[in-house]
Amino acid sequence: MAKKKIAVLTGGGDAPGLNAVIYTLTKTCILKYGYELIGYKMGYRGLYLNDFMPLTLESVTGILHKGGSILFSSNKDNLFDYKVIENGVAVRKDVSSVAVENLKKEGVDALVVLGGDGTLTSARDFSRLGINVIGVPKTIDNDLMATDRTFGFDTAVNIVTEALGRLHTTAESHHRVIVVEVMGRNAGWIALYGGLAGSADIILLPEIPYTLDNVVQKIKERDSRGKLFTIIVVSEGAREVGGQQTVNKIVEDSPDPVRLGGIAHKISYELEQRIGEEHEIRPVVLGHTQRGGETSPYDRILSARYGSYAAHLIHEEKFGNMVRIKGGEIGYVPLEEVIGSQKLVDPEGEIVNVCRDLGVSFGDRPVTRKK
Amino acid sequence: MAKKKIAVLTGGGDAPGLNAVIYTLTKTCILKYGYELIGYKMGYRGLYLNDFMPLTLESVTGILHKGGSILFSSNKDNLFDYKVIENGVAVRKDVSSVAVENLKKEGVDALVVLGGDGTLTSARDFSRLGINVIGVPKTIDNDLMATDRTFGFDTAVNIVTEALGRLHTTAESHHRVIVVEVMGRNAGWIALYGGLAGSADIILLPEIPYTLDNVVQKIKERDSRGKLFTIIVVSEGAREVGGQQTVNKIVEDSPDPVRLGGIAHKISYELEQRIGEEHEIRPVVLGHTQRGGETSPYDRILSARYGSYAAHLIHEEKFGNMVRIKGGEIGYVPLEEVIGSQKLVDPEGEIVNVCRDLGVSFGDRPVTRKK
Amino acid sequence: MAKKKIAVLTGGGDAPGLNAVIYTLTKTCILKYGYELIGYKMGYRGLYLNDFMPLTLESVTGILHKGGSILFSSNKDNLFDYKVIENGVAVRKDVSSVAVENLKKEGVDALVVLGGDGTLTSARDFSRLGINVIGVPKTIDNDLMATDRTFGFDTAVNIVTEALGRLHTTAESHHRVIVVEVMGRNAGWIALYGGLAGSADIILLPEIPYTLDNVVQKIKERDSRGKLFTIIVVSEGAREVGGQQTVNKIVEDSPDPVRLGGIAHKISYELEQRIGEEHEIRPVVLGHTQRGGETSPYDRILSARYGSYAAHLIHEEKFGNMVRIKGGEIGYVPLEEVIGSQKLVDPEGEIVNVCRDLGVSFGDRPVTRKK
Amino acid sequence: MAKKKIAVLTGGGDAPGLNAVIYTLTKTCILKYGYELIGYKMGYRGLYLNDFMPLTLESVTGILHKGGSILFSSNKDNLFDYKVIENGVAVRKDVSSVAVENLKKEGVDALVVLGGDGTLTSARDFSRLGINVIGVPKTIDNDLMATDRTFGFDTAVNIVTEALGRLHTTAESHHRVIVVEVMGRNAGWIALYGGLAGSADIILLPEIPYTLDNVVQKIKERDSRGKLFTIIVVSEGAREVGGQQTVNKIVEDSPDPVRLGGIAHKISYELEQRIGEEHEIRPVVLGHTQRGGETSPYDRILSARYGSYAAHLIHEEKFGNMVRIKGGEIGYVPLEEVIGSQKLVDPEGEIVNVCRDLGVSFGDRPVTRKK
Repeated sequence: MAKKKIAVLTGGGDAPGLNAVIYTLTKTCILKYGYELIGYKMGYRGLYLNDFMPLTLESVTGILHKGGSILFSSNKDNLFDYKVIENGVAVRKDVSSVAVENLKKEGVDALVVLGGDGTLTSARDFSRLGINVIGVPKTIDNDLMATDRTFGFDTAVNIVTEALGRLHTTAESHHRVIVVEVMGRNAGWIALYGGLAGSADIILLPEIPYTLDNVVQKIKERDSRGKLFTIIVVSEGAREVGGQQTVNKIVEDSPDPVRLGGIAHKISYELEQRIGEEHEIRPVVLGHTQRGGETSPYDRILSARYGSYAAHLIHEEKFGNMVRIKGGEIGYVPLEEVIGSQKLVDPEGEIVNVCRDLGVSFGDRPVTRKK
Repeated sequence: MAKKKIAVLTGGGDAPGLNAVIYTLTKTCILKYGYELIGYKMGYRGLYLNDFMPLTLESVTGILHKGGSILFSSNKDNLFDYKVIENGVAVRKDVSSVAVENLKKEGVDALVVLGGDGTLTSARDFSRLGINVIGVPKTIDNDLMATDRTFGFDTAVNIVTEALGRLHTTAESHHRVIVVEVMGRNAGWIALYGGLAGSADIILLPEIPYTLDNVVQKIKERDSRGKLFTIIVVSEGAREVGGQQTVNKIVEDSPDPVRLGGIAHKISYELEQRIGEEHEIRPVVLGHTQRGGETSPYDRILSARYGSYAAHLIHEEKFGNMVRIKGGEIGYVPLEEVIGSQKLVDPEGEIVNVCRDLGVSFGDRPVTRKK
Repeated sequence: MAKKKIAVLTGGGDAPGLNAVIYTLTKTCILKYGYELIGYKMGYRGLYLNDFMPLTLESVTGILHKGGSILFSSNKDNLFDYKVIENGVAVRKDVSSVAVENLKKEGVDALVVLGGDGTLTSARDFSRLGINVIGVPKTIDNDLMATDRTFGFDTAVNIVTEALGRLHTTAESHHRVIVVEVMGRNAGWIALYGGLAGSADIILLPEIPYTLDNVVQKIKERDSRGKLFTIIVVSEGAREVGGQQTVNKIVEDSPDPVRLGGIAHKISYELEQRIGEEHEIRPVVLGHTQRGGETSPYDRILSARYGSYAAHLIHEEKFGNMVRIKGGEIGYVPLEEVIGSQKLVDPEGEIVNVCRDLGVSFGDRPVTRKK
Repeated sequence: MAKKKIAVLTGGGDAPGLNAVIYTLTKTCILKYGYELIGYKMGYRGLYLNDFMPLTLESVTGILHKGGSILFSSNKDNLFDYKVIENGVAVRKDVSSVAVENLKKEGVDALVVLGGDGTLTSARDFSRLGINVIGVPKTIDNDLMATDRTFGFDTAVNIVTEALGRLHTTAESHHRVIVVEVMGRNAGWIALYGGLAGSADIILLPEIPYTLDNVVQKIKERDSRGKLFTIIVVSEGAREVGGQQTVNKIVEDSPDPVRLGGIAHKISYELEQRIGEEHEIRPVVLGHTQRGGETSPYDRILSARYGSYAAHLIHEEKFGNMVRIKGGEIGYVPLEEVIGSQKLVDPEGEIVNVCRDLGVSFGDRPVTRKK
């Protein structure tokens, strides 16, 4: 009997832990089940172009701890609505049948898809077309409703926390206000957890619109207590009450004015106008450092559990499902149920309230502090 | 009306996160509830000697991220069976009434006790004596049955993982076998999680007795595949099939021979006899570096949730309980139910099997590897 | 006989190592020489306001490794040209005599000044006024001609290098171009050393004006070899051939347009226009994370040597000098000789050529690569 | 005309930076000079067995920051006195002619040897045999007289310092004495620099024999000032006045007693006898974690300079020399002059005195502390 053949692909933005999933999935499939594996390169694009590499014990040696993805990835490649050039013109069309054909041609028995909401939506759609699909959730923002934790989030929080720790010593010495922009377009989990762990004074999230007045009032309240510096953490997607997000506006198409900076630069500029006399205001943009480097041990173990469990699901032929963690237990959930439900920060949730009780401002109300 | 007065103490070995609990408990009690706080020094000893310090917003400034405990701690001080000197002779007696008296004298309304199984047993006993007690679980070994996670564990796993990462490059270059001793006298969670995250080849735990033959066989199996180095992680409490633990035997009282080393040195010596010709064998003892330094962001957030919730429990007068995390949800459980049940590694549990499927040996059986 | 009294102050921007100098200076002065110490707060401003604190063994406990300065600092406070309010109007005048008076009043025998070029210029001027001054060089940019190394530089290079390491994994996975802005307004040492250690592909320095064409050409040359990502490190003070620095232009006063971003956002925008179709372009602004956190061991030892040696110079009454390292040897140089000579990166120097030989582009010429 | 062919090998224990030298040497030789490169595996053993691999731009991609050596290494392989099996019997003989023959056969024009004193002695001997040799100094202990700094040392000091930082918080909480064993058999530089940067209270070096009495006296002196914990850093080769080193005695051949531990366990045992009632004594053995992981930025730059300069020396045909740093300047020195002169810690040198002035004990004299 021929060996079973498993294909793997990673879609969307990268998150530390992708390689750890590939590592455990590959080793478990080969050593425990005797399967053969291939990895499509650059996400669904590789599936469309039939561009793949064999995944062997050798090819996954030493990747457990590494950020990125050895299979690379690409954003926004939806084969059900794919940009192709026809007669010199770019048109969008459904090329999913090419992918299905490629899988058949290579004799692929099951396809493991690592990705976020968009990537998993396609995974569900391929499942509906009869492909044996296993999904593995990936979002550095930890904003998937169907699972308690996604890998990459712990690593990102570590990097944000470390940066805030470094800023404390320098901010303190110079009576500075430092505005730190972190990832999170719609969900503010990274800013919230990083801000709590890193002792931020003000945390601005997409889910809790702020006013500049409240931000300034908090800084002044700190001044009045002799705390002459302030650390502000801001999600890239944070916005003012009644305002719009500045994310994705880094480059506006209008020829001039050109607004180059993101939210950290915007807030720094506005604070400069208001309190620039008393404080030195400085932006920090952590950007892609948050996605990179070594995967944290927590994320490695979470990913290893996902990768291992995905192999078992293949063996048990439980296709059309996504692996997930709920209440600490590894398990699975139908792909049909996981799409489109984003887990946002609850403005009155437990962690937000832990922060509020510590005196952290979310910019949505004035600080009233006893003592 | 007088302010409520809350007392806090930390007992047993230290774990990163103690200060984060003290920080959030203190700030939440003062800022949200307007309580007054004191901290007894050196655990129950301070309660007996009535040795305490005020806990204020100032005294907890900047401690959120720090390992250790600003209240210090002491091992093995059980006031219900306490060593005192009477007439020049050391005797053991129940001095709990002195503690109760001190709490009354100071007007303490509630006592928050941070500790492991031993410390919490006394907490329960004080609760039985009518003291308003709230427990907070603390064990770096993550071996309390009543809660999913204890703070300090993530930090310790990080440090072990980092050490294993460093050892890989050097072991590889020189065909070395390196034996890394980590914490864990009865429960091997740190070795298991650290070993998985750090890609150890062999993991030896208290719960899974090993044989040296199996260890040697795994090393040779690696040699045969051209993997000329091996990383072994061993809990300090690991033991051979039919053997005894060497932990706490570091210093034997017999005048000579003196067996100075722990399990890492013992195994290194034994491997030297067996495969010293082909391999350089080297012990590493991480010791108390695993308890120290900065608390990991994960542990800071866990601790912050504990500290905050303990304050709420006091406010709601839900005494006689311990805070805990179950399935990701913060909550509480009666102290009466938490004592004496240790959570050990299941030799057939999920994480152990994730490791086995990756080819990791636990020394309990020979490796049979396809391919 | 009265104890000698030594005063210390830290001026200008902070650099990791200031506290280590204060630590060793204080301990050596007290334990070895039996002096008494005070620290003026907020640099020269404290000297003017006679605002100081005692420096004791207790007050320096545990500060050796910490960034920032326990004495705080302030930029641009020149007492020889100081902004004061007279009759409601801000005027600039020489208030150095007030400082001299304060030193006399407190019975200060010697003044130790930690600072960069501006701060040391004032130190020299106070020396000319007859004050017993010892200077300690401080510039995170390592751009003082009179000493081989200044503390803070190694720490900053470490932080830049770590960030670049993290960016490599993520850049690689997604065919990204990432533009990392680091400190360095006039001198590009941090970008140069960090860029070399962190394997940057392009390094843009104030000393070597670049053209965007050369930057784009290097990215395309990498593309042509299948290296589909590029890491660019850019000093905040880098500038195009014939162009101006954008540093300090973060906020232009013209009401609109407002150019919020710095050089990283500017270059990202311009690359977006040129190669935005093929590459995802992302800015990172490390900002004050480079100044903060823990001082590196290298910088701690350098600072300890400075602090210790400054104490010896006081004992030997060798005033009017600055401590320095030359050729690995600790020594001193007259303050009169150290002012105003900045050590810039030599565009044809050894380290630049090490980089060029590795294929790094400085944006000043097209890449011509054999092979 | 044929391309020049350069061979490289790494000998002796590994040190972080070896790969960085290989990286820059290879890239510079290929990109700047158009040479061809091969790397002998496992040091001189590979030269004897003619076991080599091509060194190309591809094979050195991504190794700049990695510890270890991609060429592997082996200790104690001296081809001038090599263990071979003849007629079933192990004999030692000079096999250097085989190596010379191999170099000729492969058409090697120059041989670059990275190693410490032993490896470089052989390099000199091959040079005497007419081989075009360039040496690159390597010793993690920084104990070569001919160069100011060797790579690997900064990385090792970082790791020791980090460990000491972690130990401070935990030692403090529990009134512990922690004994940390670090590398250094003959030269105590790592203990000295790491101890200073990490605020050790006692530093024990091979160059300064200690007495246990002085160690105990220092601990008690700290106790008397309320500093109830003590951190001791000890070189593996430290020894008591009149005593012997315990390094390499980890495994004594006498069947029983077996003395398993090294110097940290020995001292811990002895302190336990003396002050075990008042203090918890704990050993830590950092072992090979000090050699491993990521090379520090400082060491990467030093190594890059070495590797680059070695390429230039080949181009200029300045053979028989070793690259080195003196007074911050890269340069070279004849191999004939560098052998056999070890740079030891001067018990009255500057850094030792910086420590003494801070109150650090070296165990060689009682502490007499004012105040």
